[in-house]
Amino acid sequence: MRVVGLDVGGANLKGCGISLDESGTPQDILYSLNHFPVWLRDRTELWSLLSQTTYTLSNNGKPDLVSLVMTAELSDTFATKREGVVSIARGATTALPDSRIVFPSVDLNLLQLSEVLASPLSVAAANWPVLAWTVGREVPDCILIDVGSTTTDVIPIRDGLPVAAGKDDTTRLIHGELVYTGALRTDVSAILRTVLIDGRPCRLSSEYFATSGDVHLVLGHITEGLYTTDTADGRGKTQQECLARLARVVCGDIETVEENRIADIAEQAWEQQLDDIRQAIDQVCKRLSAAPRNETFVIAGLGAQFLGKEAVNRTGAKAVRDLDEVLGAEGSAAATAYSAALYAGIKWRHYL
Amino acid sequence: MRVVGLDVGGANLKGCGISLDESGTPQDILYSLNHFPVWLRDRTELWSLLSQTTYTLSNNGKPDLVSLVMTAELSDTFATKREGVVSIARGATTALPDSRIVFPSVDLNLLQLSEVLASPLSVAAANWPVLAWTVGREVPDCILIDVGSTTTDVIPIRDGLPVAAGKDDTTRLIHGELVYTGALRTDVSAILRTVLIDGRPCRLSSEYFATSGDVHLVLGHITEGLYTTDTADGRGKTQQECLARLARVVCGDIETVEENRIADIAEQAWEQQLDDIRQAIDQVCKRLSAAPRNETFVIAGLGAQFLGKEAVNRTGAKAVRDLDEVLGAEGSAAATAYSAALYAGIKWRHYL
Repeated sequence: MRVVGLDVGGANLKGCGISLDESGTPQDILYSLNHFPVWLRDRTELWSLLSQTTYTLSNNGKPDLVSLVMTAELSDTFATKREGVVSIARGATTALPDSRIVFPSVDLNLLQLSEVLASPLSVAAANWPVLAWTVGREVPDCILIDVGSTTTDVIPIRDGLPVAAGKDDTTRLIHGELVYTGALRTDVSAILRTVLIDGRPCRLSSEYFATSGDVHLVLGHITEGLYTTDTADGRGKTQQECLARLARVVCGDIETVEENRIADIAEQAWEQQLDDIRQAIDQVCKRLSAAPRNETFVIAGLGAQFLGKEAVNRTGAKAVRDLDEVLGAEGSAAATAYSAALYAGIKWRHYL
Repeated sequence: MRVVGLDVGGANLKGCGISLDESGTPQDILYSLNHFPVWLRDRTELWSLLSQTTYTLSNNGKPDLVSLVMTAELSDTFATKREGVVSIARGATTALPDSRIVFPSVDLNLLQLSEVLASPLSVAAANWPVLAWTVGREVPDCILIDVGSTTTDVIPIRDGLPVAAGKDDTTRLIHGELVYTGALRTDVSAILRTVLIDGRPCRLSSEYFATSGDVHLVLGHITEGLYTTDTADGRGKTQQECLARLARVVCGDIETVEENRIADIAEQAWEQQLDDIRQAIDQVCKRLSAAPRNETFVIAGLGAQFLGKEAVNRTGAKAVRDLDEVLGAEGSAAATAYSAALYAGIKWRHYL
């Protein structure tokens, strides 16, 4: 059977198609990633993108099953999450009229449209539970650190299943299981409150002048090609353009702030991100009465190496595994979409 | 003589027209305020707005003198401040072909276009020195606290003149003379890093979900009519819409976070703003070896009462005067534009 997983995020649409045989082994894996900021674009474009993605990922055909998870319901293009979930679930159903669509819930049930409409919040932000389930199949006891473009998930897994304390985004923020810091899109003015310039503390601008993508390009952590989100000012992604944006966070520009001082600002933003993730890991471990040094960490996402792994190292932990190695390179490329497909496929394969 | 002052900010165009007699007393004061986010709008619209504002403020005629100050050069629509200053100075000169235009500098010189082109940074962010000069005529020794829509200026004045340690925005940020916190436009995710919900610390989203305008409308500090800037989501300015935006900063919505808990988030954002301004005042006073309790504070701007006065009170200072009372209600309504007009008019009146 052919299953397509879709992860409808606020800024990106991730998709993954897999074929499952009787034994439940995923094969012929295809994946796609489209930058699609839902708060800036027309909703109808999203439906056609969903439809086209699904067609492509099922080898230009019709899938046996589509499994959709989302986080885009939090976008302020929707008045409430309820409205967002309903809009996306209905829109996808209309865009894929010939497909059977299921929606994994936060509690790892598979809902159909009618059930989603009756209880929309049960599928809000349900991309992390399916990913945790997929990781848990391979590493039953671990902590998953998934560093995306904007946010970082810290998900404890025990006996193969997520044991998160938070079930919605707000409680996940409280418990350190969700941190709004990521590899590309995070606003620098939300990362730092002050920065040292030649050892003197300087307040920051509160404008949307630069993002973590600028930080990591300047520091050499990513290439222009990996900087897949929009820039804050709509300009390009060269070293010079990233430096120019970062100079603005202290109300300077590339003529008024020297290049090595700008790189120093990037360094401090990176340090703060690492510290924020490390604190979240400590909080999660404390709740589990676990010591980081005894834990296995699985790191995932765009920022796995320069944010996830670095932060884990700072907790003193030694056992760190890459998602690539746990799920395979193809499975980890669009990991949440792959997990949505795999989870639904495994659960449904006996019925189709 | 009729003088028009223009303050070309990043988000607002303020204008003021005054008539000066031989004694230098301003009369027949007209003013205007237009919300104009330069990074979102077409530049040519700005030139026609400048031209029309000048015409209206000189009683539908031609002014004897136009005095222009700016902060819009920091907007990321310009690659550097130099480019921004040159663009605005040239644009205004072209838009007002029959007018004599002067540009007050940060050092309180009056430059003409050729001098601005030779030394653009000398007029960058030169709105605060003219305001300080105007206040200093009335209260020669004081500290001016000007709380605008996005930022707060803390400007020490001695013997009638500003004695700021910073001359550009970056050094002003370092010295506590510029704080990126204001009454309407400041991003809440840049104000707070965590918020207490029922006594438990909750991390914040880093998205542009809510602004200080939402905070102060919910707290009853401003009416819908005073909320003159754009909202973060483009929706309206009712109590319910502001509550909805604020709920999003903890990734909730008005259905998932109770109203009194949202108001509590607003309260904490306000407290943080007050604390940020108070710290800046302490830093400025420390440099001057001054004790806040012995200082006179002049408070100005949209947030004068609920941010400026409150923050001053927390330093233990007793002597607080309103700009309204110092400059008159008309002079204080578009205070930086009024000051630009008055300063240029007083300096030039013997030459025209």
